[in-house]
Amino acid sequence: MKNLLMTPGPTPIPEEARFAMAKSIIHHRTDEYSEIFKELSKNLKYLFKTENPVITLTSSGTGGMEASVANLFSKGDKVVVVSVGNFGERFVKLCDIYGLEVVKLSYNWGEAAKANDLKEVLAKEEGVKGVFLTHHETSTGVLNDVKSFGEILKGTDILFVVDTISGLIANEFETDNWGVDCAVAGSQKGFMAPPGLAFVSLSEKAQKALDKSDLPKFYFSFKNTLNRLPEGQNPTTPAVNLIIATNEACKMLKKEGLENVTARHKNLKEAVAIGIKALGLEFFVKDEAVRGNTVTAVVAPEGVDGQAVNNTMRDKYGITIAGGQGAIKGKIFRLGHLGDVDRFDVLSLFSALEMTLNDLGYKGFEAGSSLKAIQKYYLR
Amino acid sequence: MKNLLMTPGPTPIPEEARFAMAKSIIHHRTDEYSEIFKELSKNLKYLFKTENPVITLTSSGTGGMEASVANLFSKGDKVVVVSVGNFGERFVKLCDIYGLEVVKLSYNWGEAAKANDLKEVLAKEEGVKGVFLTHHETSTGVLNDVKSFGEILKGTDILFVVDTISGLIANEFETDNWGVDCAVAGSQKGFMAPPGLAFVSLSEKAQKALDKSDLPKFYFSFKNTLNRLPEGQNPTTPAVNLIIATNEACKMLKKEGLENVTARHKNLKEAVAIGIKALGLEFFVKDEAVRGNTVTAVVAPEGVDGQAVNNTMRDKYGITIAGGQGAIKGKIFRLGHLGDVDRFDVLSLFSALEMTLNDLGYKGFEAGSSLKAIQKYYLR
Repeated sequence: MKNLLMTPGPTPIPEEARFAMAKSIIHHRTDEYSEIFKELSKNLKYLFKTENPVITLTSSGTGGMEASVANLFSKGDKVVVVSVGNFGERFVKLCDIYGLEVVKLSYNWGEAAKANDLKEVLAKEEGVKGVFLTHHETSTGVLNDVKSFGEILKGTDILFVVDTISGLIANEFETDNWGVDCAVAGSQKGFMAPPGLAFVSLSEKAQKALDKSDLPKFYFSFKNTLNRLPEGQNPTTPAVNLIIATNEACKMLKKEGLENVTARHKNLKEAVAIGIKALGLEFFVKDEAVRGNTVTAVVAPEGVDGQAVNNTMRDKYGITIAGGQGAIKGKIFRLGHLGDVDRFDVLSLFSALEMTLNDLGYKGFEAGSSLKAIQKYYLR
Repeated sequence: MKNLLMTPGPTPIPEEARFAMAKSIIHHRTDEYSEIFKELSKNLKYLFKTENPVITLTSSGTGGMEASVANLFSKGDKVVVVSVGNFGERFVKLCDIYGLEVVKLSYNWGEAAKANDLKEVLAKEEGVKGVFLTHHETSTGVLNDVKSFGEILKGTDILFVVDTISGLIANEFETDNWGVDCAVAGSQKGFMAPPGLAFVSLSEKAQKALDKSDLPKFYFSFKNTLNRLPEGQNPTTPAVNLIIATNEACKMLKKEGLENVTARHKNLKEAVAIGIKALGLEFFVKDEAVRGNTVTAVVAPEGVDGQAVNNTMRDKYGITIAGGQGAIKGKIFRLGHLGDVDRFDVLSLFSALEMTLNDLGYKGFEAGSSLKAIQKYYLR
């Protein structure tokens, strides 16, 4: 049975990246490595749309999120954390652990955050040092309007930290133009690279804040990492093979062109949405305008367990999708359309989904109706 | 030009591990991944010689060192840090950053630590909560007598934390028998796997200490990581490809047999020592008894820059060795004999070293004398 990954990360990895990773390893304290790491760092700037440095950490995206807290703030600092789901809650937890004073601005899962609400919070709260926002909330598929939040914060001393781990590349994101001081991304998402690297952009404002922070860090020190960046080096041994693989994937993204890559993901999202409608299924995110290009959360139909959809898709048909997280576990399933995925993969996905729903007793559709509707969209 | 890595990490990676890493990625929230991760965790216990859990973190070894500080101790705790080089100093720095009270027991670079000195320190200092020791000090090639330190600490409440990042596998190490509460290792060393994973063993005493620690951590939380271990899972997205590669390398080590692997490294060390003597060169570590099996530090001969040896070996002859760190940079060069390295690689190493020394104007040896001496050892 062939296997296909259609999750919001890890995503399929093109063989150019995988085979580069399998080559004999080179030592990291060499010019050969430095050249590759410099090229990656340049490619990251292109993908983040920033003129500022983007650093690379060997860790999952969560490590990058934690590092943004530990490097930019001090104990007792007041911050606003905007939460629309599981990964917004992670920022809340991280800020709590490091002793920040958290003002939480939260929304029901499946809804997007409203920039106007932040305006109101900032009018009431004095001395806010930072605002944390999730760009694309992986647990629900909601895309937040980072640009509008950035406009509110422009010209203030407040640091704007954005988790765009599952957002970047698949969705429009402009680090500099939107006034993002610290954007965090991860290799196993839009980069279509292996998991294990986090990327963090740092505006001048963010770089200036590093000296003021009194929170403990060494491995995740932005300062130590920034210091070695110009020479193409890392303070500790980097995951050399992952850096080489990610650079290869970045080169492919650059060749395709960032705008084209994002447009491809938008098309995949639209195809998936057409298929979902054709099957008479319900979207978890009601407002079409805030659904991201990364993943589509679908409400499991009456009498069908979301987790069973997930398991059947994978075990019987070889297509790995994602389940619900937290309180909505079992109530939804999530169809990823991220990374090295194309239109024909969406057809495989819906072929398997029709068979799975049929297996699980959901009969509310005519066989092939989703495929037909999607094909009509492709032929438009 | 062929390339050969003879450094104390990263080491050459066998193709079984590299090619496994290049296979299409599997999702980490699946039984298929859990089975592999459970197998790796079991293999780690074999290699650490422990019945206790060994956890895996996606980070360099330094991340594992930092995590041992942040998870086992609290602000103001008094600890003894034994330092014999660059990586002992790293523990000092980490403990400082997290606000521990550090009693430093340090030695000249190139010397080993003495267990009796620890006894004296403990007799004077009250309320010591932990002792940090480097097993094999990568910067000098010194091997510390972990067993004797462990004997002093047995039966006390003091936590014994050992950095065996470049020590494990290549050198004898018995986590349980030697009373080590927390041993930290790294994938790119004796494991002959790619860099990017840290491994940490936790004795029952160490596990009990986790609840008492008040230092901030989330990504590196031992508790969260331990909680997911029995089901073969990680709290955040692990570096799936690196875990698969490391497991393949572990299977090879297990097949060769840990004792045989360690003996192979001992033989390589002896062959290298014979070559060094044949060339009339001086060891940086004077006491033969404390030289580890991982790397041999050699004093650059009069008039020859250690860094030039390093560069010429790599750029002209394709053999990557390591230079000096810290205050001894340029004064020594380090010959690694770690990982997927065999007797014939040592011959290549010395062939290139003779040519390099000749290039750099050192004439104190007869051409081929090191190769002849080593071959005699092989034929013994």
